[in-house]
Formats: sequence, structure tokens, C-alpha cells
Amino acid sequence: MSVKAYGAHAADKPLESMDITRRTPGAHDVQIDIAYCGVCHSDLHQVRAEWAGTQYPCVPGHEIVGKVAAVGAHVSGFKPGDLVGIGCIVDSCKQCEDCDEGLENYCDGMVGTYNGATEDAPGWTLGGYSQEIVVHERYVLRIGHPEQQLAAVAPLLCAGITTYSPLRHWNAGPGKTVGVVGIGGLGHMGIKLAHAMGAHVVAFTTSESKREAALALGADEVVVSRDAAAMAEQGKRFDLIVNTVAAPHDLDAFLALLKRDGAMVLVGAPATPHPSPNVFNMITKRRTLAGSMIGGIPETQEMLDFCAKHHLVADIELITASEINDAYERMLKGDVKYRFVIDNASLSA
Amino acid sequence: MSVKAYGAHAADKPLESMDITRRTPGAHDVQIDIAYCGVCHSDLHQVRAEWAGTQYPCVPGHEIVGKVAAVGAHVSGFKPGDLVGIGCIVDSCKQCEDCDEGLENYCDGMVGTYNGATEDAPGWTLGGYSQEIVVHERYVLRIGHPEQQLAAVAPLLCAGITTYSPLRHWNAGPGKTVGVVGIGGLGHMGIKLAHAMGAHVVAFTTSESKREAALALGADEVVVSRDAAAMAEQGKRFDLIVNTVAAPHDLDAFLALLKRDGAMVLVGAPATPHPSPNVFNMITKRRTLAGSMIGGIPETQEMLDFCAKHHLVADIELITASEINDAYERMLKGDVKYRFVIDNASLSA
Ligand SMILES: [Zn+2]
Ligand SMILES: [Zn+2]
Ligand SMILES: [Zn+2]
Ligand SMILES: [Zn+2]
Repeated sequence: MSVKAYGAHAADKPLESMDITRRTPGAHDVQIDIAYCGVCHSDLHQVRAEWAGTQYPCVPGHEIVGKVAAVGAHVSGFKPGDLVGIGCIVDSCKQCEDCDEGLENYCDGMVGTYNGATEDAPGWTLGGYSQEIVVHERYVLRIGHPEQQLAAVAPLLCAGITTYSPLRHWNAGPGKTVGVVGIGGLGHMGIKLAHAMGAHVVAFTTSESKREAALALGADEVVVSRDAAAMAEQGKRFDLIVNTVAAPHDLDAFLALLKRDGAMVLVGAPATPHPSPNVFNMITKRRTLAGSMIGGIPETQEMLDFCAKHHLVADIELITASEINDAYERMLKGDVKYRFVIDNASLSA
Repeated sequence: MSVKAYGAHAADKPLESMDITRRTPGAHDVQIDIAYCGVCHSDLHQVRAEWAGTQYPCVPGHEIVGKVAAVGAHVSGFKPGDLVGIGCIVDSCKQCEDCDEGLENYCDGMVGTYNGATEDAPGWTLGGYSQEIVVHERYVLRIGHPEQQLAAVAPLLCAGITTYSPLRHWNAGPGKTVGVVGIGGLGHMGIKLAHAMGAHVVAFTTSESKREAALALGADEVVVSRDAAAMAEQGKRFDLIVNTVAAPHDLDAFLALLKRDGAMVLVGAPATPHPSPNVFNMITKRRTLAGSMIGGIPETQEMLDFCAKHHLVADIELITASEINDAYERMLKGDVKYRFVIDNASLSA
């Protein structure tokens, strides 16, 4: 089936309207009418070939929400009309230890929602800046939020799970002091989620101007990380710091704030390396520096259910598909509170 | 009381015989006739002022074994003649969370066995290259090995616990694949301990010539880390890698060998930074890079008991005190299998 999409024909070309094809749903497939798609930094990196291996045409988008349009003969868990989501994963090997444990995000055969290997035309996956998507039922998430919140649910599929997973894995919760570094698309969800989990949440920002906004998101305290005195006051009090900043920066300033046995988890990979972390800092308090990448399918469902229960959604700016190129420029300047979401109805305009 | 010791009067002076004083044992003190003292790389760094803040005269040595000579009035756990050891810690605040949990090694008030702050003359602690030492009973370890093994027990007090603690904390044991990087004083104990814990042990060395020795120590496999093909074969199989190499080196080569959720623990801090680790490597498999520093007193006792039960000691070369300067030069060249130990009886010569 041919559907409207928005994508780029080359790294140096703007995104534009295009027609793409979607496969006819197989026995285990779910076809989704995409209502909204969040705009992630990864979309921009991929479409502009800032990451290796981008194939064109490239249609980004992995924060997908919509309604089930049709299901394959063997699909029992979904029916037309259900509110569902697709995140960063549309396939995996389904037989490795990671897949068995529901950690498809760490499967070597994980297929990303765009630019991933597929037998479908054109040979690589095309993402959520499109009217329809067809995905194996295993990777389809159920959305329990009311339909009127659907646009703001979209960013949970990447920004939400990317912060939820390390918060859960490293045991954020009551009695724990949790830092969130960076107040952007990921960080604003990290603050909301850590707060909802019952942790004492400290937001770190380079900008004093974000203080009020961070408090409104649920931070108990806000620290301007350029203020050395304010940083020194935070010494050795953190159980966990989720660091959402992908730009190269001084990790030691944050590692030094961890308690003994504390962990800082990086969820963004810098294009050029961070300054090398001070090993002495890590050794003297048995501190951990770790990485975490999105989350598995069961955990993504758990996150969506948690968010529905706690009435959590992202803070978004809704745009039309034709506004995407401008939105990228604003995103690069950090000029968005906190996530752009495309209204996919605009694709048919 | 005045006792013979071996130490340096300045960073650029060789170690030489000197007289130092030890305090009269207080109510909670144990006075120890030092029989042997292991020679740790830290000794050399400290005495040569390669670490900041060395005070002179400097008497190194924190792998101390001997017999109790006298005990204070309130000491009930030790009596004259007992075989005992002193490691890297001779005091701590005794009231923080770390101390409460028996992790005195992470206490901010931890006092090192040499160059640590003390009210005793001359104002800083003097280590085990000496005839006697007087230490609060809390920091005295019981040795269950037969007396004839005493010299080879000495290195357990630093090299042993430094590798034992991360192996235990990160759950080395049956069914786990554990790497040990570097086959020196620390690494040779790491191999023995991980093997005794029941892990599948892979030793990494830069030198093919160490293969047979590593197998003899208990390694199940040996990998020459300069052999890219051999390294590639090890991909993603390690639960834990204990990295004993303090010289700056490529951490990514080892991080890439960890399974999902695997950890590499650094137990040495480089004088200049390692090349910055690849964050992508950490994120894509939720890998951990961590540090660990010696161990607490209860865990050091546990390690000694474990070693006694499993008949584990270090492989040593016994030297006299006057051979220490030559031993340092050999240690710098890696020319020791695997730890020099001073026969402290030679101090009276
Ligand atoms: Zn994303
Ligand atoms: Zn798999
Ligand atoms: Zn040592
Ligand atoms: Zn303490």
C-alpha cells in the first residue's frame, strides 16, 4: 500500500513530502494509522547522515502513536481502533538471551524503526513521519491514556523509556536522591518520571533560566552546573544521576556528586568523546559510570502503564509535517519545550 | 618506643635504615612484631612523591604480617603470639555510614598505613618496613594460615583484598566468565581468587611469555591483548573484568568484551588519563565501568579466611630490607613473580 510520508532524499536536502509503501499485514502484523509522531534528536542525526550508514530516502520518527487499522490473522492482542504505540524497535532476532528476557533493545539483531535492515521495500525501515506503519505484534505497545492526550504520549516511546529504564534498573524510588542532567526532551521526562517514582529529584542545567520550569516539572531542587559553589554543595549525595546530555562535557563534575556505590548513567553518546573521566574519582567511592539505551518491549509497556496511572505525558509543541525542517533548527538551539510532535493528519494536506 | 625501619628522607633519596618511634599501646591497641611486609606499587609512588603530599621521612609498607607482641587493657580479640596482619588502613572515623557498614576503605576519614594523618610522632603514619607497629584493634586482621606461609600471606593484605573485593561485589562465581587484565602483583591474586571462587577465568596479558604462568596460576584461558584476532574471539562473553593495569590504555578493547550488563572494574588509577572510553560501547549493552579501592576490614578478614580455607597465598620473592631499592627498580620493569616481600628480621642486621 502506498502512503504519504515526510523524509529526505539526501543528507543535505530538507525533508519533503514523499510516497512510500507499507507491506500488507502478515499473520502477526498490526497495521497502525499513525496519529502523531514525536521528533527525537536521533531523527535529525540519522536524516542528516551525522551517524554512519544512513540510506535514502530516509523517513525518520520513532515516537509513534495511533490507532490499529487492521490486524493479521494470528494477532489476538490487538483489534482495530485500539490506541497503540511504536517506539524505537520494530524487530529483533526473537531467539537470543536478550530477546528471551524482553530486552530486545540490546539484541544484536534489533531492527530500528528507521534505517534498519528489512525485506520490505526499499530494503531499510521507514519511520513514523508517515500515515501508516505495519509492525509485528511483539513490538506494538498498548496505550492506556485517554485519547485526547495521545499527541503528548508520543514522546514517551523514546524519551520516556530512555529515562524510565535506567531509573528503574538503578532503583530510583523513595529515599533515593536522583539527579537528572539536562532539561530537554529526555531530561524533562526523566524529572517527571523520577518524581513520580518517589525519588528526591535534583535537576542540573547550565541555564539559570530553566530553574522555574524544572521545578514545575517535578524537580525538588535545581542546580546550575556552571555554578561551582552550588555544585560543591551537592557533593556525595546522589544514589543515581541520569545524564541526558550528549554533547561532550566534564563527567567528573557529576561523578564527584555520587555517594559511595552511586551510579551515573549516560543515555546519550557524544559525537566526539567526553573528556576522559577521572578514575580516582570512581575508585575512591566505588562509583559506577554506565550506559543505557532505550528499553525493552515489556519495560516500555510497563512505562506506558506507569505513565497512564500517574497521569504523565510529555510537554509538547504540536507541528505540521511541513514545519519539520524549521523544528529541527529550533531543536538544535534547544528552543522547544520540550518535544516537537508532528500531527500526522497534516501529511495528507 | 624506638624501632628500626627502612624509609626515605626525600623523594630523590634511596630508602635507608632509620629509627622511628611507635606509641605505647593504648587500651584498644595491638602491638605487632612485624615478620614480613609486602612491597606494593603504591609504596614506590608514595615514597618517590609521585603522588601528592608525601611527608618525609616516609616509611612505606601496607602488607604487614607478624605476631602480636602486646595488647591494650580493653583488647579481648587478640593475645600475644597470635598471627595477625595489617593492610592499607590503620584508622577511620568509626562513625560514618561507611564505617558502620564495615567499608572503612571508603570512609572520608580513612587513615592510610603510611603518610596518613595521626597524632603519633612525627605527625603522619609510618608503614610496615619497620620492626613494630601499633594499631587499634579494629584494623587488625586474624591470619588462619600456617605460620610457615606467613611471608606469602603478606601480599593478601593489599593485592589480595584489592582484587577479592570487586570479585565479590560484582558476584564472581560458578557460571560467570571473569577476565583479569594484567598479571602482576594484583592480577596474579585476581586469577587465583576468581578461580577459587569457581568462575571461568580468562587472563589478559600483553606478553605471550606469560601464558604458561597464567595458566599455572589458575586461568582457564589466556589472551594476549595485543592480538586483535584473539581479542575479537572474546567478544561479549564476560560478566566481569577486573582491570589491574594502572598505565593508561585503551579501555574500549575490554569494554567491548563484556556481555550486556557486564562490568569492568578498575582497581588502579593512571597517573595520566586513559583514552576516554567509548560511550556508545557502554550504552548499547548497558555496560558498566566502575572503580574499586582495596576493601573494608570485615571483607579483608573474609578474604583471609577464604584464602586460608582454599590454601591460597601470593607468589613471592623474599628480600632483605637493604635490597628494597633494587627491588623497586625490578618492580618498575615488571621483573618480579609476583610480589616482593621484605623479611623484616633483616631490619635489625
Ligand atoms: Zn529517539
Ligand atoms: Zn534477540
Ligand atoms: Zn598496596
Ligand atoms: Zn568513617
